[in-house]
Amino acid sequence: MVDLSFREEVWESDIDMVRALVNRSGFFSSDEVEIATSLVREHVERGLDSGYFFIFAARDDITVGYSCYGPIPGTIDGFDLYWIVVDPESQGLGIGHQLLTHTEQRISQMGGKRLYAETSSTDIYTPTRSFYGKRGFFLEGRLADYYAPGDDKMLYTKHLDF
Amino acid sequence: MVDLSFREEVWESDIDMVRALVNRSGFFSSDEVEIATSLVREHVERGLDSGYFFIFAARDDITVGYSCYGPIPGTIDGFDLYWIVVDPESQGLGIGHQLLTHTEQRISQMGGKRLYAETSSTDIYTPTRSFYGKRGFFLEGRLADYYAPGDDKMLYTKHLDF
Repeated sequence: MVDLSFREEVWESDIDMVRALVNRSGFFSSDEVEIATSLVREHVERGLDSGYFFIFAARDDITVGYSCYGPIPGTIDGFDLYWIVVDPESQGLGIGHQLLTHTEQRISQMGGKRLYAETSSTDIYTPTRSFYGKRGFFLEGRLADYYAPGDDKMLYTKHLDF
Repeated sequence: MVDLSFREEVWESDIDMVRALVNRSGFFSSDEVEIATSLVREHVERGLDSGYFFIFAARDDITVGYSCYGPIPGTIDGFDLYWIVVDPESQGLGIGHQLLTHTEQRISQMGGKRLYAETSSTDIYTPTRSFYGKRGFFLEGRLADYYAPGDDKMLYTKHLDF
């Protein structure tokens, strides 16, 4: 198992770092890259009040991935997993698994009971859907043509029980 | 049909007006009232960049209801209906129907093709679910115990075709 260190504090430099990381992953449109970046900026500006929490995973002091999550307003114990991204050069090493496990443990410590993740039905996201499936998420809902014609929104749920 | 005038401009005084209106409806928790209010504040501070659009309905110069909606980032033509509220003293007059029709027309003018609304499965929201059903929405998804044990999230979709 790759040796990782985790950091929850968000630095201003993370804004550019996340933009570069998400860009490099090649998965996301420029709009999506800006959304990912804006959540970091929200946290830098407003702290925990932003509702966006982060875990950065570093290997040999280099950030190789991060997750962004937060409690869902109006629910008593639901959390959203907004993003989980691993640098493409560091994939296949189980870093996503370690990062998700660490994130789930933190959410559980914060009182979270259910974790929600959304993704697309298109082929490019097959690895993402497979990742969620292997990690104990189940497909609880599907909204047809949500993102675009033929591109459905897939709603995954995981029950946390640490 | 009740004679209504509609306004899209958001004034700073709408922050307090919406808080009072949503409070008076008796439907929403204090957390939810604050969420509704914060969306108005976001618009006052950031304008259309906030992503939150409003339509206020007035009868004899008194605001009797409003809707809050916006384009869904990452989708090509999806819109969320965040809130639609009618003053309890003005209910049963078809104001919600007029307000929704006007909102759907505006969304359609903005290129929206599908409108999404979420509500709860609990008894208190039976009129809300019935309203969406009568207005051409269908239940496309349901997330069990989303808000709380026994309180599911109901995902409604309407295809707009003006």
